[in-house]
Amino acid sequence: MEFITKNTGKNPKPMMVLPGVYLIGAGPGASDLITVRGARILALADIVFYDALIDLSMLEWCDGTKLVPVGKRCGAHSSSQHFINKQLVDAANKYPVVVRLKGGDPLIFGRAQEEIDALEQASIHFEVVPGITTALAASAQLKQPPTSRDLSRTLTLTTLPGRCTHADHQTFIYYMARDQLSDIAQTLIDQAFALDTPVCLMESVSLPTQRSFGCTLDELRMGDVQHYFLDKQPVVVMVGEVYRRNFQSLTPLIEPQMNFNVLQAAS
Amino acid sequence: MEFITKNTGKNPKPMMVLPGVYLIGAGPGASDLITVRGARILALADIVFYDALIDLSMLEWCDGTKLVPVGKRCGAHSSSQHFINKQLVDAANKYPVVVRLKGGDPLIFGRAQEEIDALEQASIHFEVVPGITTALAASAQLKQPPTSRDLSRTLTLTTLPGRCTHADHQTFIYYMARDQLSDIAQTLIDQAFALDTPVCLMESVSLPTQRSFGCTLDELRMGDVQHYFLDKQPVVVMVGEVYRRNFQSLTPLIEPQMNFNVLQAAS
Repeated sequence: MEFITKNTGKNPKPMMVLPGVYLIGAGPGASDLITVRGARILALADIVFYDALIDLSMLEWCDGTKLVPVGKRCGAHSSSQHFINKQLVDAANKYPVVVRLKGGDPLIFGRAQEEIDALEQASIHFEVVPGITTALAASAQLKQPPTSRDLSRTLTLTTLPGRCTHADHQTFIYYMARDQLSDIAQTLIDQAFALDTPVCLMESVSLPTQRSFGCTLDELRMGDVQHYFLDKQPVVVMVGEVYRRNFQSLTPLIEPQMNFNVLQAAS
Repeated sequence: MEFITKNTGKNPKPMMVLPGVYLIGAGPGASDLITVRGARILALADIVFYDALIDLSMLEWCDGTKLVPVGKRCGAHSSSQHFINKQLVDAANKYPVVVRLKGGDPLIFGRAQEEIDALEQASIHFEVVPGITTALAASAQLKQPPTSRDLSRTLTLTTLPGRCTHADHQTFIYYMARDQLSDIAQTLIDQAFALDTPVCLMESVSLPTQRSFGCTLDELRMGDVQHYFLDKQPVVVMVGEVYRRNFQSLTPLIEPQMNFNVLQAAS
C-alpha cells in the first residue's frame, strides 16, 4: 500500500495518508473545533460523505473535493444507514482517499459500528480520527468541568433515561434527549436525585446560534419544554450538582413559557 | 477589550483573539490531535504553561512563545496546583495571551476547577478550548465505539472503582487507573459483571510508544499487572461487552508474565 502525498494551498505542510476510508469527527459544529489531523485529511480527500447535521462551514477545509450529504438530522433510519455503508464501500473501490465526516466524535452515539462492519467485510483499510464530542464542547462553552473532586468523580454519557442508578453525586450528560426530557427527570428523581438538582440544556453547541438554559430537575419533569428548542437542532442535557455554580448565569428555561402566556393574554 | 491579531508564518490565516487566559486541551498526545482552534491560539500565545504530561511535539505549534512546564505527571499535588493558579493570574496581568495547555480535554479529570476559580476571583477573562479526551482517542485507535445499540447505550468515564452500579450492559472507561486495576475488577465482579467481560488497557494513547493489551475482568483481578506499564505513562482501562469483538486482535496482558517467568527460570 503506497502513501498518498498532496501539497494543497490551504495546508502548506504536505501530508501523507494511506489510501482508504477515514471516519472523521467534525466536532460540535464550529469549523475550527475539528482536529488538525481531521482538517488535513479533509483537504486531501477525493470524496467526502458528510452528515446533514454538520455545519457547512466545516466543508471549507475540503479542496476541490466531491461532497456528498448523507443521513438525516438527529439519527438516520436503518435503510439509509445501509445505503451509506454501501456508498462508502463503493467509493473506496473508486477513489484513493474517502472521508466519512460525522458530527461530534465518530464513535459516540454515531452508529459507526455499522459502517466499520461494512468496511471490514469488504477488506477496506480504514482509520478513525476522533472529534470533540458534544458533551465536552458544551462543558467548554459553559466553562464548567462535568466532574470535580468534591462533587462528582464520574461522568455518564447516555442516550437513555435512567439506565444507571445513583451511587454518588454523579454527573449525567444526555445526547439526543430533546424528546424525553420529562422521562429523564422523572427517572433521576425516582433514583433519589434532589428535586432542585441543577440542569443545563444547550442547543447548537459552539455555533453562532447556540442557546443555553437552566432549570431544576423538578422543572424539567413538569416543563413540557421540548417545543422551546428549534427543530432538527441537537440539544445536550447536563444534570448534576456541579452545575449549581453556573445556575445564576443561565437563562431560566421556564421564563419563555411565562412570556408566551403574557403574549397570549395580550393578543 | 480589544482583539489581538497576529499573522504568523505557521498559520497563514490571521486570527483574532481576546486578551486573556486560554485553557486548551492538547488531546491525547499526537500533536495533530489538538483542535485547529487550539493550534492557532498556541501560535498567538505570549506564554504557555504546559503539563509535564504533554508530548513535547505539541509545542511546535508555538511561535516564539515563552514556554513554562508546570505540574507533575499523573496528577499534581495541591501545593503545586496552588502555584500554577498563581502563575496563571500573574501572567495574565503581564502578557496579553496566556495559554494553559492541558493533556486530553481540559475539563475532564484535569483539576481545571481550581484554575477557573482563581481566574474568576482575579476577574481575568478566560476561555476553554476543548480537547480530545483520552477515552475517545483510545476508542479511535482501537476502532471500537464504546457504545453500540445492542450492547451498551451508556458510557461511564471515571477515576474511581465501582461508584456506578451495573444497570445494563454498560461500558466503563477508567482514567488514572494503573494503581487500582485489581480493585476496579473486583468491584465490577461484585456488581455482577461476568468474569470473562473483556478489558482493554491502552498506554501512551496516540503516541509512537502506544501499547495495548487485552484480558478478562477475572485476569485483571488476579493479575497484579500494574508493573507491566511504563512509569509515568498514563493508562486508560476500557471494560465492557463491546470490546469482545476486538479481543482476538489485542496482545494478551497475561502473556508477558509467562515470558517473565520463563526468563526467570532460565536465569
